[in-house]
Amino acid sequence: MVGYAFMGVAHSQAWRNAPRFFDLPLRPDMAAVAGRDAAAVQAAAEKLGWSSTETDWKALVSRDDIDLVDICTPGDTHAEIAIAALEAGKHVLCEKPLANSVEEAEAMVRAAERAPGLAMVGFTYRRVPAIQLARTLVADGRIGTVRHVRAQYLQDWIADPQAPLSWRLDKQKAGSGALGDIGAHIVDLAQFVTGESVTGVSAVLETFVKERPIASAHSGLHGTAGTETGPVTVDDAAIFLGRMSGGGLATFEATRFAWGRKNAIRLEINGSAGSLAFDFEDMNVLHFFDASQPAAEAGFRRIVVTEPEHAYVAAWWPAGHGLGYEHAFTHQAVDLITAIASRRQPEPSFADGLAVQRVLDAVERSAADNSTWTPVAKES
Amino acid sequence: MVGYAFMGVAHSQAWRNAPRFFDLPLRPDMAAVAGRDAAAVQAAAEKLGWSSTETDWKALVSRDDIDLVDICTPGDTHAEIAIAALEAGKHVLCEKPLANSVEEAEAMVRAAERAPGLAMVGFTYRRVPAIQLARTLVADGRIGTVRHVRAQYLQDWIADPQAPLSWRLDKQKAGSGALGDIGAHIVDLAQFVTGESVTGVSAVLETFVKERPIASAHSGLHGTAGTETGPVTVDDAAIFLGRMSGGGLATFEATRFAWGRKNAIRLEINGSAGSLAFDFEDMNVLHFFDASQPAAEAGFRRIVVTEPEHAYVAAWWPAGHGLGYEHAFTHQAVDLITAIASRRQPEPSFADGLAVQRVLDAVERSAADNSTWTPVAKES
Amino acid sequence: MVGYAFMGVAHSQAWRNAPRFFDLPLRPDMAAVAGRDAAAVQAAAEKLGWSSTETDWKALVSRDDIDLVDICTPGDTHAEIAIAALEAGKHVLCEKPLANSVEEAEAMVRAAERAPGLAMVGFTYRRVPAIQLARTLVADGRIGTVRHVRAQYLQDWIADPQAPLSWRLDKQKAGSGALGDIGAHIVDLAQFVTGESVTGVSAVLETFVKERPIASAHSGLHGTAGTETGPVTVDDAAIFLGRMSGGGLATFEATRFAWGRKNAIRLEINGSAGSLAFDFEDMNVLHFFDASQPAAEAGFRRIVVTEPEHAYVAAWWPAGHGLGYEHAFTHQAVDLITAIASRRQPEPSFADGLAVQRVLDAVERSAADNSTWTPVAKES
Amino acid sequence: MVGYAFMGVAHSQAWRNAPRFFDLPLRPDMAAVAGRDAAAVQAAAEKLGWSSTETDWKALVSRDDIDLVDICTPGDTHAEIAIAALEAGKHVLCEKPLANSVEEAEAMVRAAERAPGLAMVGFTYRRVPAIQLARTLVADGRIGTVRHVRAQYLQDWIADPQAPLSWRLDKQKAGSGALGDIGAHIVDLAQFVTGESVTGVSAVLETFVKERPIASAHSGLHGTAGTETGPVTVDDAAIFLGRMSGGGLATFEATRFAWGRKNAIRLEINGSAGSLAFDFEDMNVLHFFDASQPAAEAGFRRIVVTEPEHAYVAAWWPAGHGLGYEHAFTHQAVDLITAIASRRQPEPSFADGLAVQRVLDAVERSAADNSTWTPVAKES
Repeated sequence: MVGYAFMGVAHSQAWRNAPRFFDLPLRPDMAAVAGRDAAAVQAAAEKLGWSSTETDWKALVSRDDIDLVDICTPGDTHAEIAIAALEAGKHVLCEKPLANSVEEAEAMVRAAERAPGLAMVGFTYRRVPAIQLARTLVADGRIGTVRHVRAQYLQDWIADPQAPLSWRLDKQKAGSGALGDIGAHIVDLAQFVTGESVTGVSAVLETFVKERPIASAHSGLHGTAGTETGPVTVDDAAIFLGRMSGGGLATFEATRFAWGRKNAIRLEINGSAGSLAFDFEDMNVLHFFDASQPAAEAGFRRIVVTEPEHAYVAAWWPAGHGLGYEHAFTHQAVDLITAIASRRQPEPSFADGLAVQRVLDAVERSAADNSTWTPVAKES
Repeated sequence: MVGYAFMGVAHSQAWRNAPRFFDLPLRPDMAAVAGRDAAAVQAAAEKLGWSSTETDWKALVSRDDIDLVDICTPGDTHAEIAIAALEAGKHVLCEKPLANSVEEAEAMVRAAERAPGLAMVGFTYRRVPAIQLARTLVADGRIGTVRHVRAQYLQDWIADPQAPLSWRLDKQKAGSGALGDIGAHIVDLAQFVTGESVTGVSAVLETFVKERPIASAHSGLHGTAGTETGPVTVDDAAIFLGRMSGGGLATFEATRFAWGRKNAIRLEINGSAGSLAFDFEDMNVLHFFDASQPAAEAGFRRIVVTEPEHAYVAAWWPAGHGLGYEHAFTHQAVDLITAIASRRQPEPSFADGLAVQRVLDAVERSAADNSTWTPVAKES
Repeated sequence: MVGYAFMGVAHSQAWRNAPRFFDLPLRPDMAAVAGRDAAAVQAAAEKLGWSSTETDWKALVSRDDIDLVDICTPGDTHAEIAIAALEAGKHVLCEKPLANSVEEAEAMVRAAERAPGLAMVGFTYRRVPAIQLARTLVADGRIGTVRHVRAQYLQDWIADPQAPLSWRLDKQKAGSGALGDIGAHIVDLAQFVTGESVTGVSAVLETFVKERPIASAHSGLHGTAGTETGPVTVDDAAIFLGRMSGGGLATFEATRFAWGRKNAIRLEINGSAGSLAFDFEDMNVLHFFDASQPAAEAGFRRIVVTEPEHAYVAAWWPAGHGLGYEHAFTHQAVDLITAIASRRQPEPSFADGLAVQRVLDAVERSAADNSTWTPVAKES
Repeated sequence: MVGYAFMGVAHSQAWRNAPRFFDLPLRPDMAAVAGRDAAAVQAAAEKLGWSSTETDWKALVSRDDIDLVDICTPGDTHAEIAIAALEAGKHVLCEKPLANSVEEAEAMVRAAERAPGLAMVGFTYRRVPAIQLARTLVADGRIGTVRHVRAQYLQDWIADPQAPLSWRLDKQKAGSGALGDIGAHIVDLAQFVTGESVTGVSAVLETFVKERPIASAHSGLHGTAGTETGPVTVDDAAIFLGRMSGGGLATFEATRFAWGRKNAIRLEINGSAGSLAFDFEDMNVLHFFDASQPAAEAGFRRIVVTEPEHAYVAAWWPAGHGLGYEHAFTHQAVDLITAIASRRQPEPSFADGLAVQRVLDAVERSAADNSTWTPVAKES
């Protein structure tokens, strides 16, 4: 694993938990974690359960005892590390967004096509059981033709103008702001659940707070601010309209300025035969409206997605004993291990990651061009 | 009153109820109702409580015993009737949308400016107590500067492709589809609650079902379909991005294709100091997040807006004994009567109606121009 | 109508509205209202729409032009007025609880049996459309054998110890406190929706605040308190266990001390084949769990009970345009008028009211006897 | 650890996770797990992460390298194992209910008092962050004097009469049914959150389905049923009234027959100054009504209990990235380890477990005695 901050902690938990709850064809061996600060990475390795450390990711990528490289660094380093790992014959799991630009993402896809290893991108929310159920219901035709997608990712962690600068607000590191960090998730979810792609967009990006206090070193998401300020070089919020490949309409909104919404990923889909609604604030639940019900007793069904019949759930606890945020990472690990064992391409692939990147790119171009409708580039 | 269909029934209930529950400076006298079919209008008058009938609205407008003309007809007739009534020295209450075009709406505003009578447009949802509370909280600075408006009006009454044609699906009568019928309401609500205006938009309109069975005569919203079909000439759904005059971003969606959502008017506003959320499916409730609360106990407050302290509520029932859809019409009647008695301009004025019309017009122009950002025309 | 306070206002609205929205076999003529204070009753008559007044209910009962007497006075007067009215050959609608004692209620039932007129008791909440749907689903076997009833009526209007004394806190007038005022409603709802009766109870009654400020004259529910205090002679809260005649268990709770709950009538029923849940705070909604659904997609269905297929709804507004508290009173008027026209016994009958009274009586006896299980007296 | 079924899996996850997320004064070493079947316990040890196995718990208890014995067996073995472990000088964590009888529980408390080791009982739900916040708000006086406790634990896993017999339906093994299994949790939660004790009860117990198919060997909660049947010797449901030591009233309901409710632990508390509401179906949320708010903006506040300021949360994920069922077990492990390191009595103690047992005992005696009010035995 490269990087051991928030995402590294979540991924480590997944690697540790997967074999405890699931019967896996291969046993993950947490061989090494890489980070630039020798002492810090050593402490992280002990805390997180990695057997050894490297201070240069290149050393890690070249080690013979490593089969899979898990990339948990900021987006500006994804392409270089992933391509090197693939060229070194490793499997790769890369955190989202796949890259900070379409060009990088395309290079990564090409590298994955050429390489013997398998490559997967970490759109983890796909593996929330309620989202899996949503995908199944759509695939089974239960809501018919998709008419509307309504996707929002609402947070509030920088709604306070005194919240400090962090690498996530720096275009060089993060590529974009709310758009790439959280907007990427809802674009992927919309495409995954509908089984369609976003074909074009009209967009507006906005940075509400253009200057912020500079955080002291090592401050995290909630680091203490200093007295100096620096510019915010990414978007605070992104709103965009879209069209789905099946003819439906979509609205997307990603913001870190929605006071009171902590991690509200909301996805609503209306089809010709029914509707679905999901909100990560109630992550173990999916709401399903089946238009074939008699009118007098039709209603959104609040499905508590904790039955053994639901994806992944049988491995965990009895019905009603809900899962949390981290479990989706374990499911991701399980699926990747299973794919590697059977030499099948895991999903979401780098191509899926590139597809999201192309939507984000179209959003940025539309926003820069007076919101003019901008087609999403097709796969070449 | 001119017209006695759905809106006419609601308005009649309001005129009957207002003096029963509120202490009014003037007593409404339900003098006459007009409709083209003599027998039908006579039956309606008896059912709804009007003292006499006219088969020509021009006769009604010219009667000396009439002080106020209440227009409940389709949008294509609003301008002609309203202008005639104003020129005849009457006060006017006109259902929304104010007109089917900006030109008509402008003529109505000019007529209202010239005439001695007072003119009001029927954006009734403003008078739901929870919406009044939302307006008060914003006006009092409780949510700070508006960052985001998220407005949706979701219905499903024509999600079934076999739902028959009605005048509401005919561009000549209705002007537009979901956009003018229900989109107008959320544009007005967004402007009313924020106290700001929408300054520009980027939009997509769509007609999912382009041909429908022709309804038999006199069929209502849910009329039985025949075997012949005819074209749908209005939009089934409208989605658009907007900017508020205070710098915030807005997303709007109006659709009649959201299975399971019957009359879901949803308005969420995120400001620099707090947030508000409303859904007409739970119309007696407003959710309010106050960012000044300590983090450990902050949360959206579910305010049941049925206290005597809330607008209009003291006239009705004890706390918790909720109001319904129709009560907002009674509040509208109360406010109009009060305004007339004191010779003050009632709100929303025809100018407010024109402001909405200009947003709708910008939406149509943007949708016709590749979703290009389209400024909303300013008041001249 | 006798009495014109809160209940009188609600009943008047019902009599006025019923013929406006429903096609009735008989037209209600609001002939006279009775009250002791001549000026006050005259003002009420004008406000509420009654054609004449009486200062003695006995005069009203003996008038030839009166066919139906609607009793909206405190419980201590119900028996005398109702019996006199029945003996005078009138139909009677009597507010709940039927009486302040079982003896009185029995006398009323006997009077109703002997008399030519029809008698109905005002358990209005039965006529909320969602409650009607609940009854239908149970009667159709959709939830199977009833296992659990969970019924709560939660208010908070005297949670503040400074809330003043009113007739509702005076045993002489009100008979009991939360038990008879609101507990009666949930006992009736439990019996109505299940179609069963409560056969025995174990109970605890409590008065938390034993002394309160004396309200000034004419103060209503929220009257201003004076400096003198007086004793509260009724229960503030009642909790009791029960058994249903079909073998199920029941829990009941009625309190006016549940801060934040304004008029929360909650009814949950679990059967062998499904479950129902209702909360008056969201009165247009019924939640229904159908255990015959496949586990992977089973869930409580949130039925918005505003479709034309639902009881009473077709007479009102389109789907999703919710009803309020007062509409149940109109439905009550409609059903009574229809019953009178067809000479059928309306429901709930005085016998139904007596059945509730017997449960309340068993509750009081159990509470006085160390919560010992106390069978509910059977119909003689 | 003794036993490795459902509870053993949850406890193992806790021991593994605690040092990964929390800075602990002592590092847990998962030395040994005991079970009767050598092969099965060996497989469990490998899966769950225990270093060695024993087929006799007595061997485990006598091992010198063991400091803490974690008891995850059915209730009938708790007393013997716990007392032996305490007498052997070990610390003990014992799953709830503490024992199957008051006598056993008393013996365990005495053993704990005499022994050098510390003893804790596993009322895990106390350590859900939202429950911790509830306790803090009550302790800080934010809801004033407790008036009402409304506690329900609703499941549906044997609502189907064909669900097979398991040890949980066998009085010899389980002691009681819903009462001890889930009723124990809500009694403990009520006492913990209020800081009061239940002083007396009136109760009804019921077994709806008296005969069930016998499960085949090794079938778990959802094991397949055979054709033979056997008697259910425990209660299916328990309902009881209670009084709190501070004068408030309480209602309790524990059932496995509430179709559609999977693990719905609901706790509502109304006090003289506010109210709280919790439902484990939405476990990261606490609802709080503060009666000191102005009436026009008062409402239940939906606190998403995922802020760093909330108990335990800072060790996990950013705000809004919810926790699941298992995390409360990790918190329990953290608190026990911390208590052991500092030689402080952990909570809930065996005395707390006994207090719950005495309530359950009073419930059984009341139910057997015609629901007569039955005081809960005081601590001797």
